[in-house]
Amino acid sequence: MNKSTFPILISVIGESKASPENRKYAEQVGALLAEAGAVVICGGMSGVMEQVCKGAKSKGGTTIGILPGTNTDDANKWIDYPICTGIGDARNSIVVQAGQAVIAIGGSYGTLSEIGHALSAKKRLIGLNTWDLGSSRFKYPHMIICQTAMEAVEAALMI
Amino acid sequence: MNKSTFPILISVIGESKASPENRKYAEQVGALLAEAGAVVICGGMSGVMEQVCKGAKSKGGTTIGILPGTNTDDANKWIDYPICTGIGDARNSIVVQAGQAVIAIGGSYGTLSEIGHALSAKKRLIGLNTWDLGSSRFKYPHMIICQTAMEAVEAALMI
Amino acid sequence: MNKSTFPILISVIGESKASPENRKYAEQVGALLAEAGAVVICGGMSGVMEQVCKGAKSKGGTTIGILPGTNTDDANKWIDYPICTGIGDARNSIVVQAGQAVIAIGGSYGTLSEIGHALSAKKRLIGLNTWDLGSSRFKYPHMIICQTAMEAVEAALMI
Amino acid sequence: MNKSTFPILISVIGESKASPENRKYAEQVGALLAEAGAVVICGGMSGVMEQVCKGAKSKGGTTIGILPGTNTDDANKWIDYPICTGIGDARNSIVVQAGQAVIAIGGSYGTLSEIGHALSAKKRLIGLNTWDLGSSRFKYPHMIICQTAMEAVEAALMI
Repeated sequence: MNKSTFPILISVIGESKASPENRKYAEQVGALLAEAGAVVICGGMSGVMEQVCKGAKSKGGTTIGILPGTNTDDANKWIDYPICTGIGDARNSIVVQAGQAVIAIGGSYGTLSEIGHALSAKKRLIGLNTWDLGSSRFKYPHMIICQTAMEAVEAALMI
Repeated sequence: MNKSTFPILISVIGESKASPENRKYAEQVGALLAEAGAVVICGGMSGVMEQVCKGAKSKGGTTIGILPGTNTDDANKWIDYPICTGIGDARNSIVVQAGQAVIAIGGSYGTLSEIGHALSAKKRLIGLNTWDLGSSRFKYPHMIICQTAMEAVEAALMI
Repeated sequence: MNKSTFPILISVIGESKASPENRKYAEQVGALLAEAGAVVICGGMSGVMEQVCKGAKSKGGTTIGILPGTNTDDANKWIDYPICTGIGDARNSIVVQAGQAVIAIGGSYGTLSEIGHALSAKKRLIGLNTWDLGSSRFKYPHMIICQTAMEAVEAALMI
Repeated sequence: MNKSTFPILISVIGESKASPENRKYAEQVGALLAEAGAVVICGGMSGVMEQVCKGAKSKGGTTIGILPGTNTDDANKWIDYPICTGIGDARNSIVVQAGQAVIAIGGSYGTLSEIGHALSAKKRLIGLNTWDLGSSRFKYPHMIICQTAMEAVEAALMI
């Protein structure tokens, strides 16, 4: 047994109050990650975080929630392992660090901070219906924009 | 399915360069926690952290390592889920927050910081051959001192 | 003496490898903040962070650097108070929390994470030649876009 | 002007509900640090933290409070620069990292965690009426135990 036996951990980030479209994307992404044997890391809360876990559990996957607070009651019910941090929004950088790649689905301001952290940490970053950074004046490539859950998961797993 | 279905998470803290005695305690504690169905949370590194995971895996348990750095290669080989935080020793407070109870085995300075965090957070804290705070002038009860791995695990699971 | 006597603290965020244009903006912003009696909070490093401190010191202002590492040698020479955190990029959320308002000048990925944290924390956020989030599909107001250092400082101080 | 012009920053840690004796020690330590030109870093709250700042301000010193929450109203009134972190008790490790040496006065559990962090980080650590670690089985030297504020400040400044 050696370290290469660690499972693949993929961080999925996104809005806590999710649109129906993004909830669907998240559930599909969770299911596809679980089918591929990847573990889902997320912020552990509602919306995209809840749906990606629901999808993963529907296929027998494993889910870890990195929570901002100190109470596991904050975790959504599809979380297998709720990790309370007690560090508030600063936990966003840990959600990102913990994954080998990051998939952003929809997303509000917290997600934007995670996108920034993922790019800073040089993580492979996949976007699905999320913040559009493409119109920026910056020249370097940002995230890989995908149109479907399948594309996003395939892009994430090319680590 | 509801939130009460979360597994019991127990944090085990202790020295990275462990004595044979503490390595043995740690392995026993890991095995007993796994037999009781509890998940082991630890700092993910060597010494007590490695042995408690080895013990847990010997009984089919589950282990989560909250790592200070950004590279899963730092995790010991008995970790199921390596969680990279990138926040250095500040991750000690998260190791403690993530458990419903905390067992300290041996331990150097990092463990001392975790003992302080556990007491601050009002976590149930069990000590096995660890820092002696009993001679302090402070009156309030500190940790529950145990003499065997079995006693420590039983005390931890009375949550 | 009461708490209203705390000085105004303004966080200035931006790229560590800054263009001449952004270096100039940063120096002007620092000078104007100092003239207004505001304390500059920043990440303590080079580029925009260094220039805003240089500007503040040119007008007798005060500068605080919230550093990612554990060594004050990482701080630029215009920092009055180097605060080593040891938590890496997770310190970005603290840079933002520590200010009553936030001015973003230019900026790469770390700045993007700070913009996200500032918006999450409902901080007043002013942008000067920085990330363009305006083309996003999101409807809620993001940052106040300014064209000059003077405009940015005035907008920041309307707290 | 070069980096050696940074002021000396000394972290003072201790209980938020302090005994009259420890309040007096703290005020004396603050005054002596200020007279020596050192900046006081602390957790920014009440008790020892408040008294050390009061002492420092009585001699024209400078005080920085690293707060656990997000509101400067939590800072005691003798703080010059309140740094909100929003990371809760995890800020304890930053209070310690930010000082070139650490003086512990009295102290409860949070202080114990900071003592552990200070020793882990190999900071010079001075104790004044604080946790007694001397009866421990551990062989390595822990903190420098002093009997008066003057001794403690002199020991801290031999950096």
